[in-house]
Amino acid sequence: MNNHKHPIKALLFDVFGTLVDWRSSIAREARELLSPLGIAIDWERFADAWRDQYQPAMEAVRSGALPFSKLDVLHRRNLDIVLANLDLGRIDELTRRKLNLAWHRLDPWPDVASGLSRLRTRFRIAPCSNGNISLMVDLARRNAFPWDAILGAEIARDYKPKPIVYLTAAEAFDCEPRETMMVAAHSSDLGAAASVGLRTAFIARPDEHGPGTGESSASVPVDHAAASLHDLADQLGCA
Amino acid sequence: MNNHKHPIKALLFDVFGTLVDWRSSIAREARELLSPLGIAIDWERFADAWRDQYQPAMEAVRSGALPFSKLDVLHRRNLDIVLANLDLGRIDELTRRKLNLAWHRLDPWPDVASGLSRLRTRFRIAPCSNGNISLMVDLARRNAFPWDAILGAEIARDYKPKPIVYLTAAEAFDCEPRETMMVAAHSSDLGAAASVGLRTAFIARPDEHGPGTGESSASVPVDHAAASLHDLADQLGCA
Repeated sequence: MNNHKHPIKALLFDVFGTLVDWRSSIAREARELLSPLGIAIDWERFADAWRDQYQPAMEAVRSGALPFSKLDVLHRRNLDIVLANLDLGRIDELTRRKLNLAWHRLDPWPDVASGLSRLRTRFRIAPCSNGNISLMVDLARRNAFPWDAILGAEIARDYKPKPIVYLTAAEAFDCEPRETMMVAAHSSDLGAAASVGLRTAFIARPDEHGPGTGESSASVPVDHAAASLHDLADQLGCA
Repeated sequence: MNNHKHPIKALLFDVFGTLVDWRSSIAREARELLSPLGIAIDWERFADAWRDQYQPAMEAVRSGALPFSKLDVLHRRNLDIVLANLDLGRIDELTRRKLNLAWHRLDPWPDVASGLSRLRTRFRIAPCSNGNISLMVDLARRNAFPWDAILGAEIARDYKPKPIVYLTAAEAFDCEPRETMMVAAHSSDLGAAASVGLRTAFIARPDEHGPGTGESSASVPVDHAAASLHDLADQLGCA
């Protein structure tokens, strides 16, 4: 699939699910903050319920119904909805604020920090996530992600899979779309990136939504399919 | 000057002149590229002439006469003007392209990489430069600048000293202006940042435009004045 006239110069990464295990991390953070208040619920289901509000909230921005708002703001709105649905409206403001920042404290999949370091030796690398800049900065500091820059939704002022998000990221790295590769565990993200000319790499994260629930293979054509970032680094010829 | 109710959380840095010695570096790069073509000119004067076109080009964007264009694009336009003025219109396109990227290969002042590393232990740090993202990425890779993110003109789609550039950078770090400190060697930059509520630190770079030609002290009130980034790190209590 390599096109030597247009070598890949930059890699853009999806983050939630592709690089970090949001479900286990949110479950842990929610348990740590809420169980001391006497709340006992299924914490993984709580994580799923919060995440279920993710696409509808972004769709309000993508459709133009809502002006661009950082994902932290959407996460907070979604949290209030989830807590109300769970009859947990009594939870105080300060606890909600702390819990909302749980998304800044997500754990990585084990191959990520070392895999990114290998990939960075040959390519410019950045997240191209729907998460906001400060969220990406906190994840990078916590998990030693060696980004060259923080690209993605906040600089494009819109949310993936809108074309402007991928194209603004490629342009920031002075790359044509065909010189840029989107790396993600989600076929929908890769399909959208490919539709505007980016090349694509699929990373299998079969346990994203709990054991055996993630995508184990891509449902769209991709340039590379890999079991981990190290597998991708091998395929791309990184030392 | 500290306001403990609103501690500083993030530092934003001017880059050209404050962190890197653009004049010596551009003179070196121009000499290396152009002297093999038989061109013999005063290379420091060439650097100054190119830099003299910097503010007028950005003013065209700030005023709305020109849509936002990356600094690389403005630098190229300015280079063509300077070469024409020097009767060097014979220089070919490829050489112009290479020379234009000289701004991606600037050397740092000697305190910068280690000073930024100290400051990063207590604060989020990012450039807030008029340079574009890829230019900042290349300077960071070349010079080991440990940025958390690349902020500045390109994400704000306008040029300093317009308020939106400082405010967009503070907002990206989830900081109020008073929780954000602009660090620069130029009083005009610091005055503009202070006028929209940021705190300010002046770094003396007395040799920016050649020996003894830079600002040795600020001409506006500042929160900190320092001789180097290490001096600033000491003043801010960094280990």
